[in-house]
Amino acid sequence: MNLKNFIRDIPDFPKPGIVFKDITPLLGNGPAFAHTVQLLADVGARHKVDKVVAIESRGFLFGSAVAQRLGVGVVPVRKKGKLPFKTFSATYQLEYGNDTVEIHVDGLRPGERVLLVDDVLATGGTVEAVAKLVAQSGAHPAAAVFAIELEFLKGRHRLAHLDVVSLISF
Amino acid sequence: MNLKNFIRDIPDFPKPGIVFKDITPLLGNGPAFAHTVQLLADVGARHKVDKVVAIESRGFLFGSAVAQRLGVGVVPVRKKGKLPFKTFSATYQLEYGNDTVEIHVDGLRPGERVLLVDDVLATGGTVEAVAKLVAQSGAHPAAAVFAIELEFLKGRHRLAHLDVVSLISF
Repeated sequence: MNLKNFIRDIPDFPKPGIVFKDITPLLGNGPAFAHTVQLLADVGARHKVDKVVAIESRGFLFGSAVAQRLGVGVVPVRKKGKLPFKTFSATYQLEYGNDTVEIHVDGLRPGERVLLVDDVLATGGTVEAVAKLVAQSGAHPAAAVFAIELEFLKGRHRLAHLDVVSLISF
Repeated sequence: MNLKNFIRDIPDFPKPGIVFKDITPLLGNGPAFAHTVQLLADVGARHKVDKVVAIESRGFLFGSAVAQRLGVGVVPVRKKGKLPFKTFSATYQLEYGNDTVEIHVDGLRPGERVLLVDDVLATGGTVEAVAKLVAQSGAHPAAAVFAIELEFLKGRHRLAHLDVVSLISF
């Protein structure tokens, strides 16, 4: 199954000049979605992870299915102010300005091995910040998996301490 | 397994006087999460659904895992402006003001049977709007499932045309 066939180009989204990679055809196709989740879960199984960390909000769509497949729990990472309990937070730079992500302080336990899941690896800034949150929790970020990787943005160079696996490259 | 034990009360979130039901302890516990997803998926299996519709953004965490469990695709419903392709949209009333949800016009096919998934059933306004989006797509909203139901808000009265199942009631 060529998963690339289930990714749709949307020109000028979210702003002019950007070609957005739309994952919804992949999510909506039962066999393609099951295959994707299985391949991502295989990475977690290889690393014997105890938890999945899913990154808001498209990362939730892959992360929770991967956790379900692995039989482990899923811990959400969200933008600042969205999580109700006490959090660790990490700020990272965007092209213009910056952004902050948070995780509950009791989401992970010290020593747990963690699989990070998001839909797209772009510059890697978000995932780098999420790996810091995992380390701050005393847990071990073992691997990071993505449905899509935008290779020309070289995001994986920032994640050299992780096993980085993506299924579809552009 | 008493799933209620995995829900945590957070006083004064998101604003003073509100007691928020935090689902993250349930998500983070492998066996509790697996059990929850199985019970929600059982409803979809009973209705022989072809697709799961997951409601942004905590609904993504349950919906995609349920879809994975059922072996069907998952279609996201998001707040206005977040989906990249052409959408159907529905506006519903909040306590103050209103909100709009959207679904891709090609997310569902005419005649498909659909399971709606969200984390919490409160007033039912969101799910009622989502059921309209499903009907507008020519598909059939068969059932709506929730991890939590806030019974005192009587949300299920607005969803009388659906099979409504929740796992934990307050």
